[in-house]
Amino acid sequence: MENFHFFHPIEVRYGDLDPQGHVNNARFLTYMEQARVAYYKHLGMWQGGSFLDFGAILAEVRVTFRKPIHWGDPLKVGMRITRLGNKSMTAEYRIENVQDGSEFANATAVLVAYDYHQACTVPVPEEWRKKIIEFEGLDTAPHHLDNL
Amino acid sequence: MENFHFFHPIEVRYGDLDPQGHVNNARFLTYMEQARVAYYKHLGMWQGGSFLDFGAILAEVRVTFRKPIHWGDPLKVGMRITRLGNKSMTAEYRIENVQDGSEFANATAVLVAYDYHQACTVPVPEEWRKKIIEFEGLDTAPHHLDNL
Amino acid sequence: MENFHFFHPIEVRYGDLDPQGHVNNARFLTYMEQARVAYYKHLGMWQGGSFLDFGAILAEVRVTFRKPIHWGDPLKVGMRITRLGNKSMTAEYRIENVQDGSEFANATAVLVAYDYHQACTVPVPEEWRKKIIEFEGLDTAPHHLDNL
Amino acid sequence: MENFHFFHPIEVRYGDLDPQGHVNNARFLTYMEQARVAYYKHLGMWQGGSFLDFGAILAEVRVTFRKPIHWGDPLKVGMRITRLGNKSMTAEYRIENVQDGSEFANATAVLVAYDYHQACTVPVPEEWRKKIIEFEGLDTAPHHLDNL
Repeated sequence: MENFHFFHPIEVRYGDLDPQGHVNNARFLTYMEQARVAYYKHLGMWQGGSFLDFGAILAEVRVTFRKPIHWGDPLKVGMRITRLGNKSMTAEYRIENVQDGSEFANATAVLVAYDYHQACTVPVPEEWRKKIIEFEGLDTAPHHLDNL
Repeated sequence: MENFHFFHPIEVRYGDLDPQGHVNNARFLTYMEQARVAYYKHLGMWQGGSFLDFGAILAEVRVTFRKPIHWGDPLKVGMRITRLGNKSMTAEYRIENVQDGSEFANATAVLVAYDYHQACTVPVPEEWRKKIIEFEGLDTAPHHLDNL
Repeated sequence: MENFHFFHPIEVRYGDLDPQGHVNNARFLTYMEQARVAYYKHLGMWQGGSFLDFGAILAEVRVTFRKPIHWGDPLKVGMRITRLGNKSMTAEYRIENVQDGSEFANATAVLVAYDYHQACTVPVPEEWRKKIIEFEGLDTAPHHLDNL
Repeated sequence: MENFHFFHPIEVRYGDLDPQGHVNNARFLTYMEQARVAYYKHLGMWQGGSFLDFGAILAEVRVTFRKPIHWGDPLKVGMRITRLGNKSMTAEYRIENVQDGSEFANATAVLVAYDYHQACTVPVPEEWRKKIIEFEGLDTAPHHLDNL
């Protein structure tokens, strides 16, 4: 998991905990979402302002829960984009302990470019593509066979 | 998707919505979790009372988001258990529109039997096994080769 | 508390609970908010669609917590508007047990009419005023001295 | 508001936002709750571990919302305890912008000492009393007339 170039710290909130005393499973998606927005901002894909002006929707997500998270656990969420398709991209996540590097969860998400004003999917903007390829050091091989 | 024997209705809350005007992706896990607790109660696997006395934890989840959910959409969440392992079981979910039967999302989860007082995984209790096999009409083939 | 003409049922979710096993205090606001949106819809003040086309913001809230709410408790939230000012109105809430009528919490909120497109407060629309006065059986005394 | 001796920073999450694009009103309670737990930890009133071993419940809360909070706003929540009764205490909160010191909201809460294992209210422990009086520089006048 040495290849994450972006991490975002998360403070566990009391409000994230459930009756079993640890962070509720749904909050793992909230943590990854927060890292995702920060990633978009960091790369300049989203400038701030209305979220209706930025379009990427979640089409699929898979999470593997490795160990419970408790209040006070120092977290960071790693995010990287590993695949750029025509209209979609694949992101990977790792929620880890800042101090000992142990993994709380890992996840994969498929994100689809979306125009909220037109209410339809769109090709991944060229500007995003350039920024992501550069940031992630992705291979720039042709993707014209990828129709998703 | 004709094989769900259990459905739980969900009312979409304003508090479930995000700045894009639809139900936030993390809430899909909350909806499925609510169906799961209701399922446990319905089958008599959990009698109510402290949640620390009931042990099943989420080890893995995969969700496919098919279309956005809005305030006022009439939902029900189907849940069924399709696999019973030694210490784990696989559940499937379908979030659908009560009126037209269309699908908002489907999901799969791996649940692991857990003893909160001992803080360790345990075999799926025989009592659960019987109730689930009967309710779901599962094949009762031996599962001793399944080590998960 | 006999004067509520509007009640909205709420299903307690597992996701509403906190490590102390009962509904987290912040969720009481979520429950009241849900009743509020349903009230607006019921009176025809909001027709559905984008929430950016409906403008009422919370300026102040006070909640008295009377007893904890647990999973499975059958709830309804009563809401009534008791004061109509120039730009604001006061709403009262009561979260109660459907079965025995006991009170979990009561609350008061000050709501201010707001135009999201103009980003400014506005007078309470005449149409709302009429609907609320009729529904609540409010006194129609002049309110021109009320500047809030 | 110069008298807060304790502040806790909060990162606004995308998951805190509602369809009106700003932080949902219920999350203000979540932010204050997070500051409260951090305050208890900071003063040594709670050592970490199970939240069932720490007992203070919210009996009443009042919040005044001054201006909306958006994603990216740098927040801190001030908390101070201003009254120590027999079984209860009053806390005050201020959610402010770290950069310009402007106020997003202020609030007051009444907290009641509670024994979760006995399920009953209890006197504010002497140890808490000492720590709070010292930290807040409270007047140590007798409180035996205060029965709440």
